[in-house]
Amino acid sequence: MIKRVNHVGIVVKSVDDTLKFFGEAFGFKAQHIETVPDQGVRTAFVMVGDTAIEFFEPTDPNGGVARFLATRGEGVHHISLETSDIDAELARLESQGIALIDRKGKPGTAGKVGFVHPKATKGILFELVQKV
Amino acid sequence: MIKRVNHVGIVVKSVDDTLKFFGEAFGFKAQHIETVPDQGVRTAFVMVGDTAIEFFEPTDPNGGVARFLATRGEGVHHISLETSDIDAELARLESQGIALIDRKGKPGTAGKVGFVHPKATKGILFELVQKV
Repeated sequence: MIKRVNHVGIVVKSVDDTLKFFGEAFGFKAQHIETVPDQGVRTAFVMVGDTAIEFFEPTDPNGGVARFLATRGEGVHHISLETSDIDAELARLESQGIALIDRKGKPGTAGKVGFVHPKATKGILFELVQKV
Repeated sequence: MIKRVNHVGIVVKSVDDTLKFFGEAFGFKAQHIETVPDQGVRTAFVMVGDTAIEFFEPTDPNGGVARFLATRGEGVHHISLETSDIDAELARLESQGIALIDRKGKPGTAGKVGFVHPKATKGILFELVQKV
């Protein structure tokens, strides 16, 4: 079951520049900034009410996030939906014939995460997340 | 002041097909479906926790939403941020030199709305909304 929108993930060229800009424009403040070598990103979470906006930049020039930035430019990368049991949710989606990127939750910045294949969901990349 | 993420707006080819698909996949249920001739869209709001996801399709083949769909395909179109005084917020942004699409709030589906120019905000289209 999907409980809420956990965050919207946005790829940017520079997390620092972005935080400075949106700090001045919208009063956004990062809760924490983290480098995640496994995912090839440096990422900042900003709480906007109960929902976060994640701004992340590629740190691996050959990774998927760097390719996204080169191809599409800065912009929304994924929508993260919170669930209380990510493995059960992914299994349920797979049983409905929905293509997945991850069949099991894996450690991510916002908790245990798994991606649904965007080809299954109208080109939109949905992340499921279970807080840990 | 920005209070919360009101909704994420997603352009789709067909609101009905999308609601059927995401109803089965994620349990999404539309609160209401509305045709807005002024904006050339038919739109559905789905509450996911406290944040909504808006799915909308073009009804005007010459409008901006139809052009977005033709150029970029289905996907995230805007992020809507809630404020308690949209006209004051737009004036503040303009005074900071941030380009706007709307200098005053106008009637929209989620309340009184105004768009910031995406060229000012890293290519991301932000809507401000004041509930009415």
